[in-house]
Amino acid sequence: MRNGQSRREILASSGAALLAATLPACGRAQEPPKRKLGYAIVGLGSYATRQIMPRLKDCEFAKLTALVSGTPEKLERFGTEYGIPKTHRYSYANYDSIRDNPDIDLVYVVLPNSLHAEYSIRASQAGKHVLCEKPMAVSSAECEAMIAAAKKAGKKLMIGYRSHFEPYNRHGISLVKSGFIGRPRLITSEHGFNAQPNQWRLDRPLSGGGSMMDIGIYSLNAARYLAGEEPIEVSAMESTDRSDPRFRNVEDRIDWQMRFPSGALAACVSSYSSNHNAWRATGTEGWVGMEPSTPYDGHQMWTRKKGKTEQVTLPAPAKNQFVAQLDHLAECAISGREPIVAGEEGLKDMRLIEAIYRAAREGKTIRVAKA
Amino acid sequence: MRNGQSRREILASSGAALLAATLPACGRAQEPPKRKLGYAIVGLGSYATRQIMPRLKDCEFAKLTALVSGTPEKLERFGTEYGIPKTHRYSYANYDSIRDNPDIDLVYVVLPNSLHAEYSIRASQAGKHVLCEKPMAVSSAECEAMIAAAKKAGKKLMIGYRSHFEPYNRHGISLVKSGFIGRPRLITSEHGFNAQPNQWRLDRPLSGGGSMMDIGIYSLNAARYLAGEEPIEVSAMESTDRSDPRFRNVEDRIDWQMRFPSGALAACVSSYSSNHNAWRATGTEGWVGMEPSTPYDGHQMWTRKKGKTEQVTLPAPAKNQFVAQLDHLAECAISGREPIVAGEEGLKDMRLIEAIYRAAREGKTIRVAKA
Repeated sequence: MRNGQSRREILASSGAALLAATLPACGRAQEPPKRKLGYAIVGLGSYATRQIMPRLKDCEFAKLTALVSGTPEKLERFGTEYGIPKTHRYSYANYDSIRDNPDIDLVYVVLPNSLHAEYSIRASQAGKHVLCEKPMAVSSAECEAMIAAAKKAGKKLMIGYRSHFEPYNRHGISLVKSGFIGRPRLITSEHGFNAQPNQWRLDRPLSGGGSMMDIGIYSLNAARYLAGEEPIEVSAMESTDRSDPRFRNVEDRIDWQMRFPSGALAACVSSYSSNHNAWRATGTEGWVGMEPSTPYDGHQMWTRKKGKTEQVTLPAPAKNQFVAQLDHLAECAISGREPIVAGEEGLKDMRLIEAIYRAAREGKTIRVAKA
Repeated sequence: MRNGQSRREILASSGAALLAATLPACGRAQEPPKRKLGYAIVGLGSYATRQIMPRLKDCEFAKLTALVSGTPEKLERFGTEYGIPKTHRYSYANYDSIRDNPDIDLVYVVLPNSLHAEYSIRASQAGKHVLCEKPMAVSSAECEAMIAAAKKAGKKLMIGYRSHFEPYNRHGISLVKSGFIGRPRLITSEHGFNAQPNQWRLDRPLSGGGSMMDIGIYSLNAARYLAGEEPIEVSAMESTDRSDPRFRNVEDRIDWQMRFPSGALAACVSSYSSNHNAWRATGTEGWVGMEPSTPYDGHQMWTRKKGKTEQVTLPAPAKNQFVAQLDHLAECAISGREPIVAGEEGLKDMRLIEAIYRAAREGKTIRVAKA
């Protein structure tokens, strides 16, 4: 999380009347923690090993203490690289024994989607706080079970929505909330990439679905955090070339519309066959937009108001989005506060994903039940 | 229309492998015309008097020869300004007598939408070629009657789709057709403005509808000309604040999706409560986009391919979009060729508008009948 100083810098640099950053700051520990909390990383795929694990050394409240993988070679290689003793390297067979390891406070589940629920729930049952990658699971029923398990354990459950910890996206939320764009009328949110063949993302038993269960969730979540309200209707169109070997059992693209209670609409894109990475919130007075909107780095933002388009440049944050996210769960574990992207946030997205799939399948606008 | 020379300049400047501009060039008269054809302008509102009439002096094949208005003061004022003799100034009462005026070859109908059909048909019946502003009419039945009347008269009927005569939009069509973006997957097309109160556009008996029947048609037409194929399905959401006095009997915004036979989708925006003026065609290999896309001038275009975004700058055309459009009908009248945006083009849009309204009303994806 940004500290007070850098937040003021951001406000000063924006050239716009702004409210303070509006995502609730998780409670900072009143005193420096006696020790950094320990993360076990579950699943040593490329996202875990290239994006997450290298960032843990920069955390203020957390450190890497354990690894879980089904591949002994990976445990050996990354265990050696990160100085994780053999006692702190787990297979899926002895995963539950993490409960006996006091050096593990937090578990980060970075497995294929269909394994999220099981490994999150077992971590909760082992008495650990859980950070689970998005999508939270492959059904809302699974999400509900995960929330129940964490609650029963009295431990935190957080979903890996890293854009909530990224300064430009946070600034965009603030701008919309401050009234900078006037009354919000349309949010466009477009995310997609050309999927490479032969990966678990394209295998429904592991992924639970196609682009919607992967990159599409960025479009959905951004539309919701920018609107600052929950959709009440969705309509959708899917387009998948089933003769493309990548798309034998998952969808390529699904584009959808959402209606919010205020009357604002959203037009969202999810694609495995073209590159998209942008959002824009347009209101009665102007717009704020990003492209790219949710990359690992290199975010760019523009605003337009009174006929003038301006690029927004924010100072580099003290912690990048990965570090801030990792520290956030640790801070919440220490303070007892709820994460800003708790399990309920993942459940909301999953219920909408189910509605989007249904809207596309039935060719009908679907009213969304209140969470 | 651009001549061969300027077309080559455009190709050279694009930095991309291009096919020749792909809209069919209307047949040029084999010899210079013996005389410029004469336009009667029907309806002296701001679009006619500020955008159309000042451009007629720049036409190669046409000139202004007559005015039609229900307001005697306007006939006097603009008649004097443009040197139109009293014999060539008409009211709606004696409009049909234009048939007896050999100085009128072409009639440009720039009236409120619900009057397009009647005044176009009467012009056809008077033996004149017709250029009618978009939307062509307020129903597909009216469009069909207009086409029949022009056919019966053996005269041309063209719809005022000026973007088809604008170099950047034409270049965009060429880029998509050339394969520059790979296989097209998504077209976004967004047009809207904050409607001022108390104007005929907000009065359903005159406008036939809200933003969809005005600025929204730019989104629809652009999606079609960029896709280069006709939609087979539409879904839509309308959002209108009926407590806003502007929107008592017309819609504010209607956003919709379309599916094309190739599997490409379109996400389109029409708004009377926020500013939008952009399109982007995204394919498997990259994209081409414009913002603003359909202004009177000041068009801007970008492409993105292989991770590189580049602005495209085209040389100024010999004729701007207004002059090129006005000359096109005159050239077609001389050569006998069909306009590139004939009545059938307006009818296609109108059938889709009817489907879009129905999709929004019924909350269902509507399959579109083949034209």
